[in-house]
Order: sequence, then C-alpha cells, then structure tokens
Amino acid sequence: MKSYRKELWFEVATRRAFVNITSDVEECLRESGIKEGLALVNAMHISASVFINDDERGLHHDYEVWLEKLAPHAPVSQYQHNRTGEDNADAHLKRQVMGREVVVAVTGGKLDFGPWEQIFYGEFDGRRKKRVLVKIVGA
Amino acid sequence: MKSYRKELWFEVATRRAFVNITSDVEECLRESGIKEGLALVNAMHISASVFINDDERGLHHDYEVWLEKLAPHAPVSQYQHNRTGEDNADAHLKRQVMGREVVVAVTGGKLDFGPWEQIFYGEFDGRRKKRVLVKIVGA
Amino acid sequence: MKSYRKELWFEVATRRAFVNITSDVEECLRESGIKEGLALVNAMHISASVFINDDERGLHHDYEVWLEKLAPHAPVSQYQHNRTGEDNADAHLKRQVMGREVVVAVTGGKLDFGPWEQIFYGEFDGRRKKRVLVKIVGA
Repeated sequence: MKSYRKELWFEVATRRAFVNITSDVEECLRESGIKEGLALVNAMHISASVFINDDERGLHHDYEVWLEKLAPHAPVSQYQHNRTGEDNADAHLKRQVMGREVVVAVTGGKLDFGPWEQIFYGEFDGRRKKRVLVKIVGA
Repeated sequence: MKSYRKELWFEVATRRAFVNITSDVEECLRESGIKEGLALVNAMHISASVFINDDERGLHHDYEVWLEKLAPHAPVSQYQHNRTGEDNADAHLKRQVMGREVVVAVTGGKLDFGPWEQIFYGEFDGRRKKRVLVKIVGA
Repeated sequence: MKSYRKELWFEVATRRAFVNITSDVEECLRESGIKEGLALVNAMHISASVFINDDERGLHHDYEVWLEKLAPHAPVSQYQHNRTGEDNADAHLKRQVMGREVVVAVTGGKLDFGPWEQIFYGEFDGRRKKRVLVKIVGA
C-alpha cells in the first residue's frame, strides 16, 4: 500500500470565502503516483470546511446568505464560546453544516468525479494562515 | 490491495425522494470479493446526497418537511444560483445538510453496520438520470 | 494491508451529551500497529454522531442550543416518526447536521490532526447503551 501526505496552506483576506482547491488536490494525486485508492481532504482547523459542490458564484453567494441565517455571526454575545475572547463561534457551527472533510475515489490515477464535482475550502474565520490536509492511500 | 468500482443509476420520478440502496451496495461488496477495508458511497451529482439513517417512512416525511423549512425551494427567485436558469439552488443546500457520501467499514466481507443503519440515496432535484459511485478498497 | 476493528461502548446518563473520545481512538491506533492509512470512526446508531471540533465547554453549550433551535425535540407530536412510539425524531435530524462519521489520516502511527482537532461522540438520544465503530486500514 502506498500513502501520500501534503498540507495545503491558505490565508484568506476576508472572514468568509470559498476557494476551489480541485487543481491542488489533482496535483497531489499526480505527485503520489497512486492509481487506485481513496483521497481524504480535510480542514485541519475547526472553523473551516472542505466540501464538494458546484463552482458557481451565485450558489456561493446563496451558501453565504443561508449559513449566516442558520448560524448568524452577530450578535457575538449570543454564543458562550465567544466569552473565551473569540468571536468565531458561528464559524464552528457553519463548519458542521458544510462538513470537515471529503473522501474521493481514485480510479485510473484520477479523482473519480461526477460531471460538476469540485472541491472547495470553506473558510468561516479567515484573515490568518490555515491548512488543509490531503492524504491519499492506495496502490 | 484490491479495489472495486461501480456506478449505480437512478431516475427518480419526483423532485425529491429517499431511496434505500443498501442491497445494491451489498451486491457490490459481494462482487468485489473484498473482506476487510472501506467502502465509499457518494453521490456523483451535487444536488443529491448519500446518507445513513433509518428506513422508516415517517422519519423520511420528517426529513422532507425539515429540509424544506431549512432551505425552501420557493420562491426560486430568492437564490442567485437560479438566475443561471436553474430552479435547484435549494437542492444544493439540502444536500449539504444530508451529506455527499458515507464511508462504511468492511469486516468479514460484510458492511459493518449497527442495528438500524441503512444507506439512502437522497434526491433533491430528480426527474432525470443521476449516479452514485461505489468504491471499495481493501483486501 | 492491515486492518483493525473495535467497538467503543457508551451509556450517557442524559438525553444529549458530547463525549471526547480522542484518547480512545488513539489507544485503538496504538493497538492496531498501523503507521500509515485511514481511520474511520462512526456512530453505529442513527440518533448519534461522531464529529471533530473543539473541546470547549462554551462551544458545546452553543451546539446544544443551536441544534435544539434547528430541530426542536418538543412538541414530539410534530414528527411523524414519533407516531411509531418513539420520541427521538429530533435526534435523527440533529445527527444529520453533526454527521455520522469522521475519517482521519494516520501518519507515522499518529492521528494526523490540526492544532485543535478532537473527536467527539455526539449523543442525541441517550440513557441506553450505544456503540461507536473504529476501523483502521493501512500498513
């Protein structure tokens, strides 16, 4: 069994953003030389997500509005977590809706995707350096 | 390491539905001959889910009502994604709540399940052909 | 390829609770002897979650309040599932928000975690014995 590991680093200029990381993960897969197996891609931080959906600007706007409605940032005093000096409790909630990780099949040396699947890093508490882990196992 | 891949095809007659695909995945596992490993089952489309829960009609009704409350279909004009000519923005939101994929342990040639676990395809934008990927790796 | 399997048992005294199971999973990893691979940790019951987030009491309170707002327990009659004699329909909904499972990279014989990642068992219908499955595959 072969295994491969790489960290991808991000520093998003805004509090929240969606970044398409599909080509980064494809580059990892090429480097790994793995042809058949599973690729795990996960946020290493607990106020961020990795998820698969459409690379469509309008949809990303809809996600932003929807997540803010489900788990509003303000007032920050509504969350006990923010009494620790943080203001990011909402980010920990939003990340649960969007998910920590994706597992993608690797077939014939490619990410085995449907027609519109793209991998995104979902940042909910940005403006600092954060990481995504890519771990690929297989043969 | 052995690996196995199969696509399951669905054409649901309604916009939304939950389809029990456990026996399809069990059939894949038998075909694979894999005894120990991991089975990934994921929607290949970004307006559908694969998830594990109970095969109980009342619960599925509750999911339907709840998801429609969290991410209503109408009015379709509330979503920027729908300006692209689509009317399925809500399906992309609902799918994030229910999830894209499950990873199931394979032990002794069986899906290693708790007492009530069943795998479902969750369709949120049906009435056309869509696919689920089954990828099993192991020995 | 090596594989390892263990069930972790829980009996939470309250209906809902979050239990840090990171050290249990680390103990499993040591027992497995696996150095490189993937660890799957999943709830075996469909009214419970396994998820990764922060071990911070205030945040867990925020999760509790937020999940109860998104999927209220009462009135129990609002859910068709509860007509089966259950009162736990809300638990099946909450579990979908928090997730069934996590997949964690194993690198150098350790759980390959970011700085604050901890694994939790999320119980939404406790006061009885329930299980989590740990399955580790690799080399």
